[in-house]
Amino acid sequence: MTIDVAHAAEFLRENDNYLILMHASPDGDTLGCGWALCRALRSMGKNANAVCPDPIPNKFNYMFRGLPMQEFETENIICVDVADTKLLGEMKELGDKAELCIDHHISNTHYAKRVLVKPEYAAAAELVYDVVCALETDIDKDTANCLYTGIATDTGCFKYSNTTPQSHMIAAVMIKCGAETAAINYAMFDLKTQGRLQLEREVLNGIKYFEDGKVALVSVPLSMLENIPDIDSDDVGAISALPRQIEGVEVGITLKEKKKGVFKASLRSGENINCAEICMKFGGGGHERSAGCSFTSSFEEAEKAIVDACREAVRKIGTL
Amino acid sequence: MTIDVAHAAEFLRENDNYLILMHASPDGDTLGCGWALCRALRSMGKNANAVCPDPIPNKFNYMFRGLPMQEFETENIICVDVADTKLLGEMKELGDKAELCIDHHISNTHYAKRVLVKPEYAAAAELVYDVVCALETDIDKDTANCLYTGIATDTGCFKYSNTTPQSHMIAAVMIKCGAETAAINYAMFDLKTQGRLQLEREVLNGIKYFEDGKVALVSVPLSMLENIPDIDSDDVGAISALPRQIEGVEVGITLKEKKKGVFKASLRSGENINCAEICMKFGGGGHERSAGCSFTSSFEEAEKAIVDACREAVRKIGTL
Repeated sequence: MTIDVAHAAEFLRENDNYLILMHASPDGDTLGCGWALCRALRSMGKNANAVCPDPIPNKFNYMFRGLPMQEFETENIICVDVADTKLLGEMKELGDKAELCIDHHISNTHYAKRVLVKPEYAAAAELVYDVVCALETDIDKDTANCLYTGIATDTGCFKYSNTTPQSHMIAAVMIKCGAETAAINYAMFDLKTQGRLQLEREVLNGIKYFEDGKVALVSVPLSMLENIPDIDSDDVGAISALPRQIEGVEVGITLKEKKKGVFKASLRSGENINCAEICMKFGGGGHERSAGCSFTSSFEEAEKAIVDACREAVRKIGTL
Repeated sequence: MTIDVAHAAEFLRENDNYLILMHASPDGDTLGCGWALCRALRSMGKNANAVCPDPIPNKFNYMFRGLPMQEFETENIICVDVADTKLLGEMKELGDKAELCIDHHISNTHYAKRVLVKPEYAAAAELVYDVVCALETDIDKDTANCLYTGIATDTGCFKYSNTTPQSHMIAAVMIKCGAETAAINYAMFDLKTQGRLQLEREVLNGIKYFEDGKVALVSVPLSMLENIPDIDSDDVGAISALPRQIEGVEVGITLKEKKKGVFKASLRSGENINCAEICMKFGGGGHERSAGCSFTSSFEEAEKAIVDACREAVRKIGTL
């Protein structure tokens, strides 16, 4: 059943003993939603815990500061920023029993008994903010830090095209509530491990250009990762943004070796190239400006296939 | 004379034939202020031009789209984001005759007849927004692009600690007025020339660490710049942010050769180190988190002097 913010708040007020589920491979939005909602519910005198099927990267630790697990018997399961119970890993079965889902993905599968979903929201944290406002609980500094983190990370610190006036308005309110935005932004967007830095350098040393620099490709073989200490999947994921940032590049390709003989291509583009269309040719998909596909082949074959497809796409816009 | 927003608006309404001066080495804030105010005044039927003593970097061209120079005799000079007429280069004498100055620098020298200055504002563009609101002119898409650019660039896309609720609130309004924020943010914060990329790689290949990685130093000798085509001062300036972004680094040093035998050190720090204090030892200065100083010496001497001073500062916090 699709519900609105007022009904979600009513459900939360009338019940108790909540377990909040955050999705696997957690990001700032799902964690920000989970811990903000957990804090709001506890401040109302409710029992609430928030859990994630995967380990939490250290950089997010500030969000659960002073939030020890409570002992109680779970009565109601809530999923936040979880479009599909498949994204809950080993907690999938818990997700299948969800009483409430709060999410902003258009792909939400409506698995929960009550679904509050707003695909036009940049971050699920904006929707949790609406719910917390409807609950009329105070937003303290820690809760503000959580909600700000969700919005900032899902909008690329207000850089991406999904950023709306509402994203900025809520950020303004979070600062007024005491959110430590500069420290959060430094940790989320500027801080790099030495491993990340080394990876970026090695990757960029091997960059290849095609079609007068309109197509750029970087590759991340397993052997490269094995030689860099202190590197995590977050660091490897961030590489995908690099080739597209170079002036003149219409489509940036990152080709990662997932395991021996399996390569994942991640594409990023500007206004002119439809990445999803290119990736669908190889059984992949995604969004217009960001998509991916996989190859079970040699590196050379994968490279030739994806580069040729991108060159063809770039040549097409040249003749418009 | 210090005036308020209402008085600035009254002055602008009652007079005509404005020449708006933007500071040398122009940034997004001075240009955003200048062209936004120029657009607002023209929309009121006034004559107005905005000029800058230095060439405008190409990436800012969208701000003066459809804004050809008007022919008229200047009657009133306005300076925007100009703290001191020294910052006007060869236009200094024009600045000395300014009727109005709109600025947000605490260091403003109050050179103009009327001074509207708000040091608590993150960007002068926020103050120009106040003035445009007081003028009750419509903010069209182009004006919104200018004001948004000023705020976004001076706050590091809302990342820095100077960002206030007001910065976000005005950004929200600018999006509602049609500002093309995603394209602006891409051009301002993500896009890198191939030269910039090569510079970053070379600089990081030579990074040195001291005091268990708490001090990091990168150097930019003239010979490095000579070998990189397509590089500008903006690219070189951006390097200063890199060493401080590395995990564990308390103070990042960038040592640039300005000319044979003259080196400029730029320091950046987190919460623990006072960069201005360190730089003052060498006749420099700046802010707590960002400061600079110069050395007339060999590279080795300059490096030893600034690194030793930073090591000492880092050892001090170790014993707190």
